[in-house]
Amino acid sequence: MSSSPSLTAAGVSITTSNGSSLSDLPPILVLRPLSDAWSSALSAKFTVISPSSPLSTSTHAALVSAAYNKVDPALLDQYPSLKCIATTSVGVDHIDLEECRRRGIQVANVGEIFTKDVADYAVVLLIDVMRRITMSDRYVRNGLWMTRGDYPLGSKLRGKHVGIVGLGSIGSAIAKRLEAFGCKISYVSTKPKPTVKYKYIPNVYDLATESDILVVSCSLTKETHHIVNKQVLQALGKEGIIINIGRGANIDEPELVRCLVQGEIKGAGLDVFENEPDIPKELFKMDNVVLTAHQSALTPEAMSDIIQICIANFEAFFAGKPLLTPVMAD
Amino acid sequence: MSSSPSLTAAGVSITTSNGSSLSDLPPILVLRPLSDAWSSALSAKFTVISPSSPLSTSTHAALVSAAYNKVDPALLDQYPSLKCIATTSVGVDHIDLEECRRRGIQVANVGEIFTKDVADYAVVLLIDVMRRITMSDRYVRNGLWMTRGDYPLGSKLRGKHVGIVGLGSIGSAIAKRLEAFGCKISYVSTKPKPTVKYKYIPNVYDLATESDILVVSCSLTKETHHIVNKQVLQALGKEGIIINIGRGANIDEPELVRCLVQGEIKGAGLDVFENEPDIPKELFKMDNVVLTAHQSALTPEAMSDIIQICIANFEAFFAGKPLLTPVMAD
Repeated sequence: MSSSPSLTAAGVSITTSNGSSLSDLPPILVLRPLSDAWSSALSAKFTVISPSSPLSTSTHAALVSAAYNKVDPALLDQYPSLKCIATTSVGVDHIDLEECRRRGIQVANVGEIFTKDVADYAVVLLIDVMRRITMSDRYVRNGLWMTRGDYPLGSKLRGKHVGIVGLGSIGSAIAKRLEAFGCKISYVSTKPKPTVKYKYIPNVYDLATESDILVVSCSLTKETHHIVNKQVLQALGKEGIIINIGRGANIDEPELVRCLVQGEIKGAGLDVFENEPDIPKELFKMDNVVLTAHQSALTPEAMSDIIQICIANFEAFFAGKPLLTPVMAD
Repeated sequence: MSSSPSLTAAGVSITTSNGSSLSDLPPILVLRPLSDAWSSALSAKFTVISPSSPLSTSTHAALVSAAYNKVDPALLDQYPSLKCIATTSVGVDHIDLEECRRRGIQVANVGEIFTKDVADYAVVLLIDVMRRITMSDRYVRNGLWMTRGDYPLGSKLRGKHVGIVGLGSIGSAIAKRLEAFGCKISYVSTKPKPTVKYKYIPNVYDLATESDILVVSCSLTKETHHIVNKQVLQALGKEGIIINIGRGANIDEPELVRCLVQGEIKGAGLDVFENEPDIPKELFKMDNVVLTAHQSALTPEAMSDIIQICIANFEAFFAGKPLLTPVMAD
């Protein structure tokens, strides 16, 4: 049997005379749906294997998504040769990191590629709530400017006290932007950050007490699950506004809804929810909230960046090099 | 008759025994509705006169609003002793400045007190349109996230070319903010500004051709009426977005609506309209526009600043000093 090289869009591959591939491209198990852009980018450099393919016995990596996958011992048991996981998200709460560490599985997220876009979005969501942009759009569309007159004024952001829950890369980028908008920044974090000038407050209850606005930008862990609870919301108070671009479960959602219904806090800008896309119906009728569909990070431009960083991590893994954007268990 | 001083909230005033005031507080003609805050602030320092009061024959000032008043020769003819006008707006297109100059009437606007808030608002309106915040809120509220899946992605602002129409104080503040969001800035203005580093483009058609986004932040004059016309909109093109926080008539509104309907431009964020609050009904059904009720400048905090600056201008006028924030005819 002779083999001849054939030039494909993906580069040079070796094809046998009966058409089967002798490719030694490293195997990637894909556990989430793939767009065309994903498919062509991955298959150019890897052998894409699906959960329905015969079990791979050679060392392989896997691509997962926060929206589609729960990477727990039950899933890992199915893939004993899996040694590297790349997730298309920043957050890794869908991955049992401790279990991965125990099994010697490396994990990569997308690093900080979303940081600026998420921070931009958080700030805009906040100003949208404060200045009532989305609310006013609804008012205008319903013809009420004509019949009822001017829309009630929103508040100025400048000079307000903003408490940031979680001063990681995204929280820090949010703080930097809000400073430029004239806000006074405090934060809660696992420990004080020696290099930042913002006021450190050791617990979220005191942070809420001192803040006009609370911005939740922490990852979701056991410690941050419902970190914003009833007491924190009540400490934020009747004039307080909360913004969440972290994870839905960072806030006790039923309590948040109750506080909004009863006027115990003033308003909210929410891009994430506890059981997406199933959102508490009470929120749909409220005029003091802005609700968006977990989109703070996602633009077509960012989608392309996600593909690149995941592929770069897979390449590093198969080359025996350190991952570019590794995630460690605590 | 003896008179005795009585201390009031407004300070010391002289009251005669029959209760009539001998106040020599200078007279302010008020040609717009007054909130309680306005009334108490004005009456503390001035004698407030209304259009239905007997004609004042002593030199007096007047308070006007863009939303309520058209200061033309017909109105000025009614008040021959009027020598100073303060408007509660930045824009003065409702005032015939040439006619005021001819009659020796000084005019003050509110200066730059709105600059930062309007600039903040313009940027947020732009990002709202780009990242589809208001649109997504409508999608989520209608329960479509649950039934139809993720909302289509918006675009990233970072790296986009933004053309600013009018680089005055507000336009400059918008440019500064957009730079921080990673945009590339060009501008059109009556002449190049030697102190700014942004690219000057002599006409708005070329500016639109080179821009992904056009932000209208100029005042309304004969020269800027419909400065954004059909040709400019078409030069902006199918992927182009337009933001208007200037005046509605800076844009040829019927052409804008037609371009939006026919997909000749991609989207718009509009806080001002040609015939407020009467907005073209076609806009109400569009998913690619954000419509707000001429609110870019107004917050309760700013309202208080407006009162202060108007009063300071009146005090300067009656003290024979230069106005703090004078407006001149070109």
